[in-house]
Amino acid sequence: MTTHRPLTATLLVSCSDQKGLVAAVSGFLAQHDANILDFSQHTDVTEKAFFARVVFEIEGLAIARDEVAPAFTPLARRYGMTWKLVFSDQVPRMGILVSKYDHCLYDLLIRHKSGELAVEVPLVISNHPDTKPVADFFCVPYHHLPITPETKAEQEAAIIKLLDDAKVDFVVMARYMQILSPEFLSHYHHRVINIHHSFLPAFIGGRPYHQAYERGVKLIGATSHYATEDLDEGPIIDQSVVRVDHRDTVEDLVRKGRDIERLVLAKGVRLHVDHRVIVHGRRTIVFD
Amino acid sequence: MTTHRPLTATLLVSCSDQKGLVAAVSGFLAQHDANILDFSQHTDVTEKAFFARVVFEIEGLAIARDEVAPAFTPLARRYGMTWKLVFSDQVPRMGILVSKYDHCLYDLLIRHKSGELAVEVPLVISNHPDTKPVADFFCVPYHHLPITPETKAEQEAAIIKLLDDAKVDFVVMARYMQILSPEFLSHYHHRVINIHHSFLPAFIGGRPYHQAYERGVKLIGATSHYATEDLDEGPIIDQSVVRVDHRDTVEDLVRKGRDIERLVLAKGVRLHVDHRVIVHGRRTIVFD
Amino acid sequence: MTTHRPLTATLLVSCSDQKGLVAAVSGFLAQHDANILDFSQHTDVTEKAFFARVVFEIEGLAIARDEVAPAFTPLARRYGMTWKLVFSDQVPRMGILVSKYDHCLYDLLIRHKSGELAVEVPLVISNHPDTKPVADFFCVPYHHLPITPETKAEQEAAIIKLLDDAKVDFVVMARYMQILSPEFLSHYHHRVINIHHSFLPAFIGGRPYHQAYERGVKLIGATSHYATEDLDEGPIIDQSVVRVDHRDTVEDLVRKGRDIERLVLAKGVRLHVDHRVIVHGRRTIVFD
Amino acid sequence: MTTHRPLTATLLVSCSDQKGLVAAVSGFLAQHDANILDFSQHTDVTEKAFFARVVFEIEGLAIARDEVAPAFTPLARRYGMTWKLVFSDQVPRMGILVSKYDHCLYDLLIRHKSGELAVEVPLVISNHPDTKPVADFFCVPYHHLPITPETKAEQEAAIIKLLDDAKVDFVVMARYMQILSPEFLSHYHHRVINIHHSFLPAFIGGRPYHQAYERGVKLIGATSHYATEDLDEGPIIDQSVVRVDHRDTVEDLVRKGRDIERLVLAKGVRLHVDHRVIVHGRRTIVFD
Repeated sequence: MTTHRPLTATLLVSCSDQKGLVAAVSGFLAQHDANILDFSQHTDVTEKAFFARVVFEIEGLAIARDEVAPAFTPLARRYGMTWKLVFSDQVPRMGILVSKYDHCLYDLLIRHKSGELAVEVPLVISNHPDTKPVADFFCVPYHHLPITPETKAEQEAAIIKLLDDAKVDFVVMARYMQILSPEFLSHYHHRVINIHHSFLPAFIGGRPYHQAYERGVKLIGATSHYATEDLDEGPIIDQSVVRVDHRDTVEDLVRKGRDIERLVLAKGVRLHVDHRVIVHGRRTIVFD
Repeated sequence: MTTHRPLTATLLVSCSDQKGLVAAVSGFLAQHDANILDFSQHTDVTEKAFFARVVFEIEGLAIARDEVAPAFTPLARRYGMTWKLVFSDQVPRMGILVSKYDHCLYDLLIRHKSGELAVEVPLVISNHPDTKPVADFFCVPYHHLPITPETKAEQEAAIIKLLDDAKVDFVVMARYMQILSPEFLSHYHHRVINIHHSFLPAFIGGRPYHQAYERGVKLIGATSHYATEDLDEGPIIDQSVVRVDHRDTVEDLVRKGRDIERLVLAKGVRLHVDHRVIVHGRRTIVFD
Repeated sequence: MTTHRPLTATLLVSCSDQKGLVAAVSGFLAQHDANILDFSQHTDVTEKAFFARVVFEIEGLAIARDEVAPAFTPLARRYGMTWKLVFSDQVPRMGILVSKYDHCLYDLLIRHKSGELAVEVPLVISNHPDTKPVADFFCVPYHHLPITPETKAEQEAAIIKLLDDAKVDFVVMARYMQILSPEFLSHYHHRVINIHHSFLPAFIGGRPYHQAYERGVKLIGATSHYATEDLDEGPIIDQSVVRVDHRDTVEDLVRKGRDIERLVLAKGVRLHVDHRVIVHGRRTIVFD
Repeated sequence: MTTHRPLTATLLVSCSDQKGLVAAVSGFLAQHDANILDFSQHTDVTEKAFFARVVFEIEGLAIARDEVAPAFTPLARRYGMTWKLVFSDQVPRMGILVSKYDHCLYDLLIRHKSGELAVEVPLVISNHPDTKPVADFFCVPYHHLPITPETKAEQEAAIIKLLDDAKVDFVVMARYMQILSPEFLSHYHHRVINIHHSFLPAFIGGRPYHQAYERGVKLIGATSHYATEDLDEGPIIDQSVVRVDHRDTVEDLVRKGRDIERLVLAKGVRLHVDHRVIVHGRRTIVFD
């Protein structure tokens, strides 16, 4: 399914809106003979903010790839840009946290194996042993760190050490049923992707399918978002819904929900991995 | 677009679940030579409750149409049924309340005129004069009752009188921006249909599109529901969503929202008019 | 995820429309003290045809379960019914045919393992060896029968023998890239479910994603249907679509398509397994 | 609902892909002190083609607005660009063709009146008198030109004259049931938008809802596209679908279809009016 793709760089830029930003960025690249493959830009007129994502080829560049960032720095400084430059051969390393439900774990590992998800998966960490055979089948190291209220802090420290040792770039909570500490989340700021099994901000907190059943909604949803200290309040990356009706029991909602959880989490991860998401306050700019 | 349809009766039944309910109801109808066109039934196993909707032809009945209800009463009593019998030539009379936004009003009146919505529309009532030309064009009497905090109670009484005099069967709040009193709502218990411009229970209350923008959701929704004393808490009839993204301003959300408001309100009204909705606590059984 | 469910029987009935059908069927069941859990009925007024699906509990029946069918036969004969009676402890046996693409195979086996799909899976048959590790992981016997133009007839006979020996009730073509012979299809009449990777009848035949790309459609689809002699003309069980745009290459369509193929095939299989589908000519009645 | 918007220009560009295109275009604008509000670009790597849409403010430009095109011409020539420059105060003039069905006509005129659709509507032309009251209500001149096989050519010439005299920029077939001649379509090349009441390329030709019913599909669709000589083969702008099932008669499909016809046509018109569509062969690039 995968085809040969040229080596590329992706430049993500945010700053306050000013005249000449598109020309400045594209002019910089033209000056160094870059072939731009994709230029996406968004100006938030309400907040007077500018966001851009540029993909360009490395081959044919007039300067070495590691000279691009230093060369861009003065320009970025002049405009007060927040920016990031990544290369397509820097494959992001994804750590997975999971509890007992295995549908999101399967989904991510199948997509990874098929070549659809361009990441390395150095490890899966769980507070339960149940999903170990799944990780084994896909040849991903599995770490079982059981958690009790007493051991929670210490085990979380162990998880951070495992993730850091594995040089993980971002973390996916694939239906991980533990709340991460503010320390954890600031350590991986905007690099922890969670799947919440409701259409946020409806049904915040626990047992959203039960809440949805009680309320008698006609659609249920799922939300992938960056995890932040404020539970279920993090910037939303993607959402989807599925129709339900009076015949659906809570168990049916759980079953139907699994399908959209898989899709919405996979899409959130894909967008993050492709460097298509910029967080701006509580909102995201998604260049899809 | 309309075709000749036979005269039919619709029987709606709710009761606690018991053996033989389907046979009792259909047996009663068979005994009187009724031709059943549609038999829909739902058993809520969690709540041990039974709901049914039966449509049968009047022609060929062994008893007169006004003898059906008396004949059914003993059986209904035996099983403790809550029930309703309506005939297809009893065209429901729909009162419309509207403020300044006219998109839902247009939509309902166009559907009515095309024959799609089998109702009479004896009147439109508004606290603003703006939509009078629309009602005029569709030849529906228009009543302008301006409302101030001081006149609210008195004007609402006037509205109830207008609706009662017009022998209205149910009321549609087609983006009516006034809160109805508990008295009004109990007077028209489960017969007031509102359109809320969000995917309830997300963004309860005012300015839901602004709330949605602030929260950065990726879908916005609309909800048609029976209005109850608890604002935005009434039983939901239908919901739908539309995709939005970071490029959408609040004004874009309002524009995109109008389209689903129209569809979701029209569907809610249609289901109500066809006697397809049974309210059970905070939830609805919708036989669609 | 699975809960205890009572032993039930499901009765599927088709016949020409006549008065008293609902009463006759439900009366029969009431006479034998059956507790009806679900009664779904459809009258096709255009074709004057009647279809029903009734689920009732075995416990409490006044007759033995194997006496139900004989007792029902005279009534069925009187009304000229085509009918089927199945019990919930007769778990259907599903044979899977697959080629190289593994996404539908994974999906079905994961749903089976999770208890979501109430079937036995006695075997997977493939014309390629690639997916054997998947079947092995889920502990399902795998048969590799390579096919060349010369061996096609003989290998298909071998497949039928394998399926028959395994007492398979129905067959799923989980992206099986071989055309089945009329003999095969009549042997398993309306018991072979295929997933076609387009929104039928658009893009019949091979390479539908390439066709969709060339045509510039804005949605792509997937269709689960009963396989019949007329390729891609079989009765449709379920369909779904996903939005695409000018940025999507053929490879992107293939990737996005995989997700709806999985969902649409799984839903088709689920509906078949729950005895919710009645085929009527080129159309299906789906009691979902 | 409308807010003050600054005067802007929109530049649409197509050419074969070459290095430095983004920089050339944005550099040209920067050189003249243009403030870019929106820069959208697409490179079709398969066809090695480049497409861009740039919106910039007129206020603050270092040259007069009517000097922009002459100044851009040499650059456009150098790169072999096909291009178009339009200003936001050049409100497009939309002619509407309609037959008897009025739902799309209502929809367009309501959107126009609400300020949602930034066009002038100088006339509605119909081969039937039925929709005249609708045009009257919205104060749009209505021309009734009945068509028989004998008068078809002559009446079409009269229609073209009416449209030309009204200085129409583009034409919308709002369920216009006449086939336009190749002469008409070449006169308004890629400026005639049609709504086809099926999910093209499924159910090409007449009576698509009847075809859909016969085939037993589970979704029906609508397609807005540029009309071309090859009927129903024109470049697609937008498509949508709605779920149907075995209970839906042809009349139900027609009713459900009306809702998506309205939405899909309105979206197609909106995208065209905002200069967001570039036709490339049989496909469209839609910068939405």
